[in-house]
Amino acid sequence: MSRSLRHPMRVRYAECDPQGIVFNSHYLEYFDVALTELWREAFGDYDGVMDEFGLDIVVAEATIRFRSPLRFDDVFELCGRIGRLGTTSATFTIAVERVGEVVTEGEMRHVFVARETGAKAEIPDRIRSALEPYVAD
Amino acid sequence: MSRSLRHPMRVRYAECDPQGIVFNSHYLEYFDVALTELWREAFGDYDGVMDEFGLDIVVAEATIRFRSPLRFDDVFELCGRIGRLGTTSATFTIAVERVGEVVTEGEMRHVFVARETGAKAEIPDRIRSALEPYVAD
Amino acid sequence: MSRSLRHPMRVRYAECDPQGIVFNSHYLEYFDVALTELWREAFGDYDGVMDEFGLDIVVAEATIRFRSPLRFDDVFELCGRIGRLGTTSATFTIAVERVGEVVTEGEMRHVFVARETGAKAEIPDRIRSALEPYVAD
Amino acid sequence: MSRSLRHPMRVRYAECDPQGIVFNSHYLEYFDVALTELWREAFGDYDGVMDEFGLDIVVAEATIRFRSPLRFDDVFELCGRIGRLGTTSATFTIAVERVGEVVTEGEMRHVFVARETGAKAEIPDRIRSALEPYVAD
Repeated sequence: MSRSLRHPMRVRYAECDPQGIVFNSHYLEYFDVALTELWREAFGDYDGVMDEFGLDIVVAEATIRFRSPLRFDDVFELCGRIGRLGTTSATFTIAVERVGEVVTEGEMRHVFVARETGAKAEIPDRIRSALEPYVAD
Repeated sequence: MSRSLRHPMRVRYAECDPQGIVFNSHYLEYFDVALTELWREAFGDYDGVMDEFGLDIVVAEATIRFRSPLRFDDVFELCGRIGRLGTTSATFTIAVERVGEVVTEGEMRHVFVARETGAKAEIPDRIRSALEPYVAD
Repeated sequence: MSRSLRHPMRVRYAECDPQGIVFNSHYLEYFDVALTELWREAFGDYDGVMDEFGLDIVVAEATIRFRSPLRFDDVFELCGRIGRLGTTSATFTIAVERVGEVVTEGEMRHVFVARETGAKAEIPDRIRSALEPYVAD
Repeated sequence: MSRSLRHPMRVRYAECDPQGIVFNSHYLEYFDVALTELWREAFGDYDGVMDEFGLDIVVAEATIRFRSPLRFDDVFELCGRIGRLGTTSATFTIAVERVGEVVTEGEMRHVFVARETGAKAEIPDRIRSALEPYVAD
């Protein structure tokens, strides 16, 4: 069975809008935290391994589906997996869960690029094997 | 031919990340500005017409495709249209253009709900006819 | 000896700017988290007690002194106290500490107002006595 | 008489909080826009002149006084001057005005540093003379 990153969070007041709910853009900041933490769990260190290979990641596409709003001070959990691990790109799936209910979910497609040229680069074997446990069944 | 909202913007320093480019979440803030301005152009006033009908809008889904990054101080234009005008929801398509090049584009699906109950509500005729000129051919 | 709120945090990538450091506005979001957590520690619940007294808080003044920058993924601690507990206002002092070093510090002056009228209101005794342990010596 | 930068703005929905007003941290983003525009007016180009001298600016201190809140869609004007032009630092004063009423005002103290070393650097004559017209009487 595949692993998934789980990371606890709490809604900040500054993230809520006049409707009293988290404004939509902040979910992309939450997704980014999920990716940072998934990377930390998988590698221990993001910068180190990317420096070693001279790689960077660029976001190519993001999708968010909003089912139910989060409100100020809500406790929630970020749940991160990998939907697809391609040759030069990886699609992360992130679910925002509040007491076991998925309130928001989305995908982010990341492309690996060479720092020097910005050209697409193959995901190195060492990175691939560290990410593979998170690939959803 | 359909109309489209066009609104000029400039990237703020605070919107850029350590890669020197606009962080992805800020595009959803730009999209929201596009919707506000499209609404202003179509109705003159967002709150007034929504108050009159006792309606609210909730975002159900958002998608963003990143083609090329924006950087600090870049001038760009938001281009907003309506991709689909349904019974209770409208899908807006937004393009972020820099000197005629589409650097980012996306869609946001909005659902009209009754303020009292939060239940889906039909788009009133007066709102529908004001939005129709923006429906893409 | 006075109590102080201590709350652990970690810098998000989205909070960092092209200089690679936390953009200055985000410290006010951190300060707000410190106040939420101080309130939680002192009362258990912010909304409940304020609802009971029909009160709201408005920020009248904020000052921040930047000594040393925080960077992506830095772990830090928010340290919150009360500098001055007046009749209708309270001044919170917040220090942002990284491994025992104060990197940023500031004050926020909050005024208590009646929800109905917006007029200044005296801090109720129950709120005052819950905040008093945090008043710096 | 001294010059002042004047720059028109409009409040974005995403900048407003559950109280229906602009959350305090966003004023520092507005202040930063004021500084960018003051610099543009004074020099035509920020990066060019700073590159030429190998300089960077770091924010040392910021103060904000909140008099009256801004709300969604409010039109306002940023008014920027220089309060004090020192040897290695400059203090900018920014007023946020809505229909001639100052709703928020503040100061930001900026220190000029050498990019290579991070050490304080004297403000070059060419920068000083371009900023001098903005020094408040």
